[in-house]
Amino acid sequence: MREILIIGAGRSASSLIQYLLNKSVTENLAITIADMSIVAAKKFTEGAPNARAIMLDVFNEKERRAAVQKADLVISMLPARFHMEVAKDCLTYGKHMVTASYISDEMKALDSKVKAKGLVFMNEIGLDPGIDHMSAMHVIDRIRDKGGKMLLFESFTGGLIAPESDNNLWNYKFTWNPRNVVVAGQGNAAEFVQEGTYKYIPYHRLFRRTEFLQVEGFGKFEAYANRNSLKYREIYGLEDVLTLYRGTMRRVGYSRAWNMFVQLGMTDDSYQLQETENMTYAQFVNCFLPYSPTDSVELKMRHSLKIDQDDLMWEKLLELDLFNRAKTIGIKNATPAQALQKILMDSWTLEPQDKDMIVMYHKFGYELNGERKQIDSNMVLVGEDQIQTAMAKTVGLPVAIAALKILNEEITTPGVQLPIKREVYEPILKELENYGIHFKEFTTPYLGYNPDNLT
Amino acid sequence: MREILIIGAGRSASSLIQYLLNKSVTENLAITIADMSIVAAKKFTEGAPNARAIMLDVFNEKERRAAVQKADLVISMLPARFHMEVAKDCLTYGKHMVTASYISDEMKALDSKVKAKGLVFMNEIGLDPGIDHMSAMHVIDRIRDKGGKMLLFESFTGGLIAPESDNNLWNYKFTWNPRNVVVAGQGNAAEFVQEGTYKYIPYHRLFRRTEFLQVEGFGKFEAYANRNSLKYREIYGLEDVLTLYRGTMRRVGYSRAWNMFVQLGMTDDSYQLQETENMTYAQFVNCFLPYSPTDSVELKMRHSLKIDQDDLMWEKLLELDLFNRAKTIGIKNATPAQALQKILMDSWTLEPQDKDMIVMYHKFGYELNGERKQIDSNMVLVGEDQIQTAMAKTVGLPVAIAALKILNEEITTPGVQLPIKREVYEPILKELENYGIHFKEFTTPYLGYNPDNLT
Repeated sequence: MREILIIGAGRSASSLIQYLLNKSVTENLAITIADMSIVAAKKFTEGAPNARAIMLDVFNEKERRAAVQKADLVISMLPARFHMEVAKDCLTYGKHMVTASYISDEMKALDSKVKAKGLVFMNEIGLDPGIDHMSAMHVIDRIRDKGGKMLLFESFTGGLIAPESDNNLWNYKFTWNPRNVVVAGQGNAAEFVQEGTYKYIPYHRLFRRTEFLQVEGFGKFEAYANRNSLKYREIYGLEDVLTLYRGTMRRVGYSRAWNMFVQLGMTDDSYQLQETENMTYAQFVNCFLPYSPTDSVELKMRHSLKIDQDDLMWEKLLELDLFNRAKTIGIKNATPAQALQKILMDSWTLEPQDKDMIVMYHKFGYELNGERKQIDSNMVLVGEDQIQTAMAKTVGLPVAIAALKILNEEITTPGVQLPIKREVYEPILKELENYGIHFKEFTTPYLGYNPDNLT
Repeated sequence: MREILIIGAGRSASSLIQYLLNKSVTENLAITIADMSIVAAKKFTEGAPNARAIMLDVFNEKERRAAVQKADLVISMLPARFHMEVAKDCLTYGKHMVTASYISDEMKALDSKVKAKGLVFMNEIGLDPGIDHMSAMHVIDRIRDKGGKMLLFESFTGGLIAPESDNNLWNYKFTWNPRNVVVAGQGNAAEFVQEGTYKYIPYHRLFRRTEFLQVEGFGKFEAYANRNSLKYREIYGLEDVLTLYRGTMRRVGYSRAWNMFVQLGMTDDSYQLQETENMTYAQFVNCFLPYSPTDSVELKMRHSLKIDQDDLMWEKLLELDLFNRAKTIGIKNATPAQALQKILMDSWTLEPQDKDMIVMYHKFGYELNGERKQIDSNMVLVGEDQIQTAMAKTVGLPVAIAALKILNEEITTPGVQLPIKREVYEPILKELENYGIHFKEFTTPYLGYNPDNLT
């Protein structure tokens, strides 16, 4: 029996655990599911052969080390900041490790020691980061093999509501951590490069500089820029590329409406408002509008954001019940972002029958034999229900597949790494297709942003 | 002879030093001017009796302690972060201390020890903070003495260009640290209270929510909100006040124009742009505009900010030579704010004959015998030249006057403090009038923001 320790039994772990449980008999896997909550862990192990649940506080060194020592491979599905304790133990006791998180500097620093022990520490192997790396390198390597030179790489991902559950004016519901949605894009300006020119978009303009994307069978989407596009030059070996842009996908119209909150300052998470516990929704809105003893919050809002009488933006606000004089925030010392999240959760929380959807869209521009060409590649996955969501599958299945392939010595290159090597992405992408995670490719004329090559 | 040690001989110290030198004979003062640059220190002492210059690195403990030990009172005109070393020595050796800086938490923590030794550590006694505290408390205490109840306090200060030197479209030049002007207002949202309602303005809206102010003989000004109005409730004992607002004054139209830079993201100081050393001004602007192989930076700018053909905003940009294709930023790894500062300094640096101007404007609303009343109080000071600037006088003279009054035991209450006690502000305000720093008072009808008392 090969021992797998899975730490963290949250929502993102369901498909991952299910995959490994399904394989446990044929693959001789003994699976330990560890969580702070024994109830959460036991949810998965009931009636499952070869599986047991344990309670584990990752900061309890003794418990953690005992659990790691028994395993052959450890999967950490904890938030990224908790990985390091586990990683150090894995190194000490010579265990492989898999995470779906970005490689931290601390994690990276373990690389030579991990290599020296012949261990595989595979990271960034969820959805984004994860499937994005694999599906991008799959096309980029092919283009290079043919002798093509990459000119453009754009990549977009969105966690959205499935078309059959899409029944509000925002075409959006919280299918994942609501907090991340409310604070999305904050921090430094978004930085990217277009036709060799660096571009920067500050947060307060981010949601007004969107691009459109068309996905066959699913209609039109829009995307706003991610902050960190440029770091992918190094990761993908795209140092010479003229255009590099990564973004987040939403249904058309979402960003323009979301921008209303950004403009008013309602998404700010850096300071606390006064007296939020008994603050009504309308009072919350009024915090960000000029004082008036006579004018309504509604009219001040319309005036401040220049919302015309017949503008659909207004209907979107009304749908959220934003001007309610009875409902209260109910949180002490809430930041604007926390208060806004509370209001949005009234409207954007999934109904029991709702399904989610993941959309990913890549554009690859390149030059081959003096000709400029483009490949578009996209993937759409709709969730089955609220356990086997599209998000849980796309995050968890690559982790699970990678874990098994490491145990089976199909993935062997040692070190702290992400899945950009053929050895890794080829078999994993292939197997993901069995679960409906399938990229379609289209050849399109390459235009870039400067079709006539003007200088 | 009484020994005064002045640490820091920068621009802000000139009026302060001049005042003390002028009094040195009649008041028996021996004045030591200490600076990192002996040249800077000597500029003031040449030909002055009772004065000597020394070179002092404030982090050289031995030198610093020797200098402090010799003095009866120490004035620190260093940037606020350097005060603490000096303050600890003053405590050790039993010396009074005066600064024009905000009281830091560290400084505050010395209070009981300073009191125990009977020392006066007077802070926040420059312009803002300083003259604002004194002139405000002067009126507030008078209103309270009569039995009045404060309802409203608003306070505005601006460091501007004198009318006779005001010859650009922005009606603005750098009369003080340019960096502070470029990053002004950044950080948390501005927070204040109007008629009992808390209001918050995020940075990217700050320059579009201005108020107008009229100063007799000097015309119309505008003001944008400072970030920290609410802390003045505690300092001035205004806990029950309905309206509390502090702001920064500019000439009308400045803020709307400055907002163009804010909107584009050009004032951001939190990250570095790529390849700024040889970047032209036009390329800098282009960083913040969408890519286009054909459209000019100018047209993209007009479109992005919706600047019409006949909008004066455009003339303001042209005046700064913002679209120059030859001038370069010339700074490695510049932040947007650093690059913008470079461009602005071409246009906004003072000419040799230029004079500066300080404007301060307070509004006091109160209720007395069931009647609501208002007093407005304002002060304008125009600089003499570029040594005896209005800024140097308003910052330095209160420091100098306070220092002498402490030595002469006219100010005796011990502890770490700011000038809000009658003992302090009355004689100092009186003496400042001799130097043209004079507040005019006007009685106006009290309107507040809710004149009809609607609820």
